[in-house]
Amino acid sequence: MTQIKNIGVFTSGGDAPGMNAAIRAVVRTALYHDMQVTGIRRGYEGMINGDYEFLHRKSVSNIIQRGGTILKSARSEQFKTAEGRKLAHYQLKKHNVDALVAIGGDGTFTGAKALYEEFGIPVIGLPGTIDNDLTGTDYTIGYDTAINTVINAVDKIRDTAESHDRLFIVEVMGRDSGMIALRTGVASGAESVLIPESKDDLVGLFDRLENGRKDKSSRIVIVAEGEQEGGAFHIGNIVKEKFPHIDTRVSILGHIQRGGKPTCMDRVLASRLGYAAVEALKAGRSGEMIGVIHDEIAYTPLEKAIEKSSEINLNLLKIVEILSL
Amino acid sequence: MTQIKNIGVFTSGGDAPGMNAAIRAVVRTALYHDMQVTGIRRGYEGMINGDYEFLHRKSVSNIIQRGGTILKSARSEQFKTAEGRKLAHYQLKKHNVDALVAIGGDGTFTGAKALYEEFGIPVIGLPGTIDNDLTGTDYTIGYDTAINTVINAVDKIRDTAESHDRLFIVEVMGRDSGMIALRTGVASGAESVLIPESKDDLVGLFDRLENGRKDKSSRIVIVAEGEQEGGAFHIGNIVKEKFPHIDTRVSILGHIQRGGKPTCMDRVLASRLGYAAVEALKAGRSGEMIGVIHDEIAYTPLEKAIEKSSEINLNLLKIVEILSL
Amino acid sequence: MTQIKNIGVFTSGGDAPGMNAAIRAVVRTALYHDMQVTGIRRGYEGMINGDYEFLHRKSVSNIIQRGGTILKSARSEQFKTAEGRKLAHYQLKKHNVDALVAIGGDGTFTGAKALYEEFGIPVIGLPGTIDNDLTGTDYTIGYDTAINTVINAVDKIRDTAESHDRLFIVEVMGRDSGMIALRTGVASGAESVLIPESKDDLVGLFDRLENGRKDKSSRIVIVAEGEQEGGAFHIGNIVKEKFPHIDTRVSILGHIQRGGKPTCMDRVLASRLGYAAVEALKAGRSGEMIGVIHDEIAYTPLEKAIEKSSEINLNLLKIVEILSL
Amino acid sequence: MTQIKNIGVFTSGGDAPGMNAAIRAVVRTALYHDMQVTGIRRGYEGMINGDYEFLHRKSVSNIIQRGGTILKSARSEQFKTAEGRKLAHYQLKKHNVDALVAIGGDGTFTGAKALYEEFGIPVIGLPGTIDNDLTGTDYTIGYDTAINTVINAVDKIRDTAESHDRLFIVEVMGRDSGMIALRTGVASGAESVLIPESKDDLVGLFDRLENGRKDKSSRIVIVAEGEQEGGAFHIGNIVKEKFPHIDTRVSILGHIQRGGKPTCMDRVLASRLGYAAVEALKAGRSGEMIGVIHDEIAYTPLEKAIEKSSEINLNLLKIVEILSL
Repeated sequence: MTQIKNIGVFTSGGDAPGMNAAIRAVVRTALYHDMQVTGIRRGYEGMINGDYEFLHRKSVSNIIQRGGTILKSARSEQFKTAEGRKLAHYQLKKHNVDALVAIGGDGTFTGAKALYEEFGIPVIGLPGTIDNDLTGTDYTIGYDTAINTVINAVDKIRDTAESHDRLFIVEVMGRDSGMIALRTGVASGAESVLIPESKDDLVGLFDRLENGRKDKSSRIVIVAEGEQEGGAFHIGNIVKEKFPHIDTRVSILGHIQRGGKPTCMDRVLASRLGYAAVEALKAGRSGEMIGVIHDEIAYTPLEKAIEKSSEINLNLLKIVEILSL
Repeated sequence: MTQIKNIGVFTSGGDAPGMNAAIRAVVRTALYHDMQVTGIRRGYEGMINGDYEFLHRKSVSNIIQRGGTILKSARSEQFKTAEGRKLAHYQLKKHNVDALVAIGGDGTFTGAKALYEEFGIPVIGLPGTIDNDLTGTDYTIGYDTAINTVINAVDKIRDTAESHDRLFIVEVMGRDSGMIALRTGVASGAESVLIPESKDDLVGLFDRLENGRKDKSSRIVIVAEGEQEGGAFHIGNIVKEKFPHIDTRVSILGHIQRGGKPTCMDRVLASRLGYAAVEALKAGRSGEMIGVIHDEIAYTPLEKAIEKSSEINLNLLKIVEILSL
Repeated sequence: MTQIKNIGVFTSGGDAPGMNAAIRAVVRTALYHDMQVTGIRRGYEGMINGDYEFLHRKSVSNIIQRGGTILKSARSEQFKTAEGRKLAHYQLKKHNVDALVAIGGDGTFTGAKALYEEFGIPVIGLPGTIDNDLTGTDYTIGYDTAINTVINAVDKIRDTAESHDRLFIVEVMGRDSGMIALRTGVASGAESVLIPESKDDLVGLFDRLENGRKDKSSRIVIVAEGEQEGGAFHIGNIVKEKFPHIDTRVSILGHIQRGGKPTCMDRVLASRLGYAAVEALKAGRSGEMIGVIHDEIAYTPLEKAIEKSSEINLNLLKIVEILSL
Repeated sequence: MTQIKNIGVFTSGGDAPGMNAAIRAVVRTALYHDMQVTGIRRGYEGMINGDYEFLHRKSVSNIIQRGGTILKSARSEQFKTAEGRKLAHYQLKKHNVDALVAIGGDGTFTGAKALYEEFGIPVIGLPGTIDNDLTGTDYTIGYDTAINTVINAVDKIRDTAESHDRLFIVEVMGRDSGMIALRTGVASGAESVLIPESKDDLVGLFDRLENGRKDKSSRIVIVAEGEQEGGAFHIGNIVKEKFPHIDTRVSILGHIQRGGKPTCMDRVLASRLGYAAVEALKAGRSGEMIGVIHDEIAYTPLEKAIEKSSEINLNLLKIVEILSL
């Protein structure tokens, strides 16, 4: 095993609060071990285009509390081709980057795996996505911040729901996963939670609106966005038609869910993972995502990490239902 | 002038943060002067339906910091008819309510004016609406909170805009008025602000996207909702078509803008106005809205207050443009 | 095992955000199982004084997002005597309370254990304290909110520290435990963390100030309050004396750490625990605290729960040090 | 009048949220008029030491929402001497700075006035201080943010006060001025407000505690820090002695009041003032502070601005008293 002298770090995919804390941890830990750190801007696109810069101690000062990613992120169609990856490899060599820390979600790790397998570059992945849908970690960087953003928004919406005796259908992020919807449903005292993992929730909601208590002054229904953003409007229309006496409104939370200052938990998670990533590369590990399972650092092969996690605590659905009686 | 013994207070129209602080101020000031206070729930609808309750000192404990309105709000078609108003008057008499404090916007004051003119009930209006579109007050209760909610949301969106080099079109509330859009446009460092009061902004935006700096990493455009919510999607589509190389997204902030804890300014404003409303009734005033102009209590006839204010500081549009260069 | 018909619920010790979410969950779950719920106000003091009220579905509406405890809390010297506890038992019988859910910390559980042992009343304890210092749960209700309150405060302080090149010594809560200090130290990018569990941190801090980088523009040191509040002033004086060229200030965060809206995690935790408490009583369990370990509900005998947890992840201290280089 | 080519901008005195928004506005407006901008770091100290840097369009990107000041601030004993000021002048000339925008409070303006009078350098002052104690502007940059920070902190403290039936004495900033205390007292529903401008408040508080309602579950007293920080402890001790049955606690909010993201109002104010400062210099104005009075730009000679404003709305004290009945 050759000694690593220059770690490249980048973020890719949707930005998530805490990415900056992870970058900071990678940089500071690498410098502590007398390695250099090269920031690769705009993910795989920048990797191909030579968008590199050295990161110093001060490059990551005062960013632990900032949302977004100072390294920016971008999609890259080019990287999906063999030729594009060759260009990326060429640039990495040119900039003497001899190991990588890739922060992102499943798309990021698919790319990282390719670099590792095709060119033998040591790669560690860190889970950075608000969706919390990866195998190999209890939480992804950004998830805790996103769910707090959601409940703060729903708290505001509830003020209006209470004041006007309304039902609000609130759509939250989560394309294939109800992770955000489920936790925020419990935490916001929702009437009902509609998620991809559980198909007949809508029937249950109708049943409750039909046969349940009539004296509720406000109702919140949380809907995971599912296939495409704005699906909540469809559900809203059905509810309005079936229950015309209920004053029903729809709110799509949208992009506010990605940004903002990371929570304490996200900053601690990101700091621990960034630290562990450098330690792992130093110890010769590669091709793995580092996560935290039961509060311990855990290593998962990248190909396994990108299998979307299906472990959703469906018991929480029952808790939502009982507690909103 | 008969002495007032029992003041009825109610909120009507869209809820606004600070309404509770105003209710608290009305109740406590009236009790201080040994008057009773009757809370009328659900606006004019509740006034007709007899939805009344006595408000005591403790009824308004610990609500100064709460969004929404503990008295709830509702629309009333019935009240728009002479018969409906007769019923309202009947109920007011039955509950010995001999004066009213009406908290809301122009619709609220139109109703209050009718009660005053048709039945001679002393009425004072307080401006409670996030839109800040009334004549006779520098600020309405709820406006300051709403604009802070907006900029906090845009700050989050900017994290993503910066991270992905995107243009975000953010729609904020304000049907006929750009008050919210204009202030939040300045405060969020927006590229451009599109408001009903200024028609050719879109042309200006296109010109800037066409001929302006190309190296901007993110752009925020604030759009007042105008005629109907969701109009920003339309603008988004035009921008996407004309500027396909710009990664453009749309975010409708929607209902989160109405709720939340009132800011310091809204609480102080609401407290002062609630206090002044009772003092005014006690002094024999009626048929007026009480606002604050240049930090002084100001009285405006209700018929004048509901003339929508057109005084928008268009100089701010120029500041937006120059500061976002 | 007799069937439980009326569950008494109370909070005791210092208030913690999320207690209301736990009360709500207990009430709603019990009603779901057709049991009654009696709220006992002001902890053991109210239990003795007969400060009881029935809790209905609506009694716990719209409280999931509120800090503090609607049941209030108080200290009780009387309950520490055998006579006091007899009185408590008498009142419980008089109000037909046949099982208890006690929400609080070690003092609360010591009392609960006595009731259970002396009078055979079924009792379940729920961990409600910001200190996170109990055995048998990964997190206590309120901890996550408190650490977020701390980092938001430190973020503000850092603005000034950065602007004036200052060192700030920030004292956070935690009498015998560095749990709050350690996590918030990592999350706020602190220079150093001083906690009861690690004795020679002060020497390490002096060493860094003496021999470390001189070009740091701001420094944050987090101190657990230890024996008595305000100890940070003492440390501040030593630092000022030894390093007169460093502009050093002290900030005691104090009581703001206990209040505020609970975070998503605290609301979910509290909801799950409140639900589990009722299920446990129904299943005949007693004398146990219910916590969450590795995201699973866990039962721990009360006498074991009150052994203060010493499991602090000291590896985080090293991470603080390396990341603030 | 010579044409201004290079404007120097600096912040001095205590940092205040919104200073960055003002710096951004100065830079962007100057660039719009084809002037250069030189940032002078660390106030007068940096002016003497040659701590200068050119500010470009991107130097002020994405700072409108940040607390503190990117130009840093510092005290300067040297500048108080004639020799120090000569050095400052020498450095200004050396860096071709031919006009200044000074952002800060009375100390800042005293210095600015000296530069203007002794060397004829065109100078405009902008009011940047959380204290809101200057003549010539309704609000200073930072004040609105500070009072919102205070009420958010007091909201948290009230959770505990309510839960434990306590009286909290909360000390807020304001050495010679009760501006912060008074507004936040109204907005937090305080029992009483103790400020330098009104001497016998303490007697009034005692009277209320002695003869007022006994059934209040919580009480908040807001105290302006006055001569020295921590004075609230003294008051706390008196209250504890005179009213031993009241559970009284003291909380010093301290430095959290200076930092944090500026509110919408502070960002708008700072943007308008920064814009107006450059326009004023361009128009040949000098020796003035620019503020906003009745929502209009207002110019006040620096010597008048530094006369501390004594206009405090004492009517608010009465409102505090009546509303907290």
